[in-house]
Amino acid sequence: MNKEEVFLKKIAKTLDNSSFLGDDCAYLEEYNLAISTDTLIEDVHFKLGQKNGAISPYALGKKALLVNISDILASGAKPEYLTISLSGNLDADFIENFYKGINDVCRKYGLKVIGGDLTGGSKVSVSITIFGNTKGRTVSSRAKAKEGYIVLLAGEHGSSATGFKILSGKLNINEAENKHFINAHIEPKLYPKISETIALNCKKPYAMMDTSDGLYDALKKISESSKTGFSINFDKIPKKSVQYKDNTTIPDFNTVLFGGEDYGLLICISKDDFSAFGEKLISLGAAKIGTVTKEKILINGKEIDRDLRFEHFG
Amino acid sequence: MNKEEVFLKKIAKTLDNSSFLGDDCAYLEEYNLAISTDTLIEDVHFKLGQKNGAISPYALGKKALLVNISDILASGAKPEYLTISLSGNLDADFIENFYKGINDVCRKYGLKVIGGDLTGGSKVSVSITIFGNTKGRTVSSRAKAKEGYIVLLAGEHGSSATGFKILSGKLNINEAENKHFINAHIEPKLYPKISETIALNCKKPYAMMDTSDGLYDALKKISESSKTGFSINFDKIPKKSVQYKDNTTIPDFNTVLFGGEDYGLLICISKDDFSAFGEKLISLGAAKIGTVTKEKILINGKEIDRDLRFEHFG
Repeated sequence: MNKEEVFLKKIAKTLDNSSFLGDDCAYLEEYNLAISTDTLIEDVHFKLGQKNGAISPYALGKKALLVNISDILASGAKPEYLTISLSGNLDADFIENFYKGINDVCRKYGLKVIGGDLTGGSKVSVSITIFGNTKGRTVSSRAKAKEGYIVLLAGEHGSSATGFKILSGKLNINEAENKHFINAHIEPKLYPKISETIALNCKKPYAMMDTSDGLYDALKKISESSKTGFSINFDKIPKKSVQYKDNTTIPDFNTVLFGGEDYGLLICISKDDFSAFGEKLISLGAAKIGTVTKEKILINGKEIDRDLRFEHFG
Repeated sequence: MNKEEVFLKKIAKTLDNSSFLGDDCAYLEEYNLAISTDTLIEDVHFKLGQKNGAISPYALGKKALLVNISDILASGAKPEYLTISLSGNLDADFIENFYKGINDVCRKYGLKVIGGDLTGGSKVSVSITIFGNTKGRTVSSRAKAKEGYIVLLAGEHGSSATGFKILSGKLNINEAENKHFINAHIEPKLYPKISETIALNCKKPYAMMDTSDGLYDALKKISESSKTGFSINFDKIPKKSVQYKDNTTIPDFNTVLFGGEDYGLLICISKDDFSAFGEKLISLGAAKIGTVTKEKILINGKEIDRDLRFEHFG
């Protein structure tokens, strides 16, 4: 268990009426609502100003909201409404550009802002709560993968971390590739149609997670919760591969598996469900990357011998 | 307009599908839910450690939640569920004690924690989102006070600010009084039964607000939104008055009106509604302190000639 997991266990033990599990979404079952809250903090999750790797207020607004939508999509719910708490020593320009970013994402995904607040503070912090409708949908669970299930993955993996490296001045490919990877970092692509197709059509329980903390981390979490393993074909993982000057491939193996912040969807569905609508998922951008096995996480038949993790948390 | 109001107007203008008004609650009307999010930030809203005026992690957990419940009660909704985002450079003790505070308040008010997250960060920040049921209830609005309405107030006013002065080492009355005022600051008393009685029984539209930013601020906000005035009898304002050694009264006039953080309920209801259940409200702890008038805010017949405000923001 890492530090975050220890703390979450302590919280669950302290509260006597709680369904707090550190899950990405909370559920108000009687209201058919999934809720996700995420907080992004300056110098922890993003940098501002002219620093290397800094993000603009507009891009921050976009990304903060996309990250939250991603959690709701991973639950199988339909994102509908949100509230925003913004704090920091802010000026009018910052606020306007941040909310322009929010607004552009709201338009794209059909969301409505229903409230929020502004407070002071030394570092900028953004906390978004997003509400998704679960009516008529089967919600996902990390614990519902089963041996023999088909594993699908949507989203370019390793691209966000590569974009961050470029933004930070540690990598320079060429203008077009730089732009592509930076954009993957700043404005992750989401897959609402894939989420919807699964949540509306799955006849059997399924597992789905976003890969915000890295693809391997998502595999590990599902395997721990479901008590299963994975056999994954690395070559099938959707990614953009670029040959770099010294003939290395970018992103490399580790970056694809551990890079994080790709906000793709990792999906484990039954063979029957895959037969019924797997083709549709593939046409929407998912790739079949392997199967759920009894134990161990194998990538191209081998276990990863290091436990690298992308850690948001200290 | 102060800075916060200017910013909130800018946000409302930037978003093209929003009911974001900087109100204390947001409403998911189709779900019969009122939602309130509030963020408390170290060194802005509270101090930690051994500093003068510092709060313990346990007391912080309690207060952070009480402040949010207060917003939901002011809307007329019934608080039911919450999510908590906690960030900062935290240790296991802090987390356990903070959540004990949360748990004790949840027990008292019958609330359930349905989710949350933990993140790193240099300053401690607590963001709570609370959900209240509005089914069968008439929700309040700041804009619904009318000339001739009766004004009621629940909650000891000026006590929280006095407690903060004592905590900060700027005032020392005697042990019993110190304890009383400090407790008013740390654990504000809320009035769920008053909120419920109004929301379930009002036949006419009503205005209700909590006095988190001070009683005068609440009067001013309702008068601006409703385009009315107030005539308030200062002596009727519920408060604990103590004679201090140099024969002054604590809290003084300004502290009662502007002190802030009392989290009382300011209520404006029609004469008919007051006739129907005003006695019940008074038996539950509300006091009749005046009437809604056409214009101007008069305290004991006089306008306050300064525009003192309790400012959380910038």
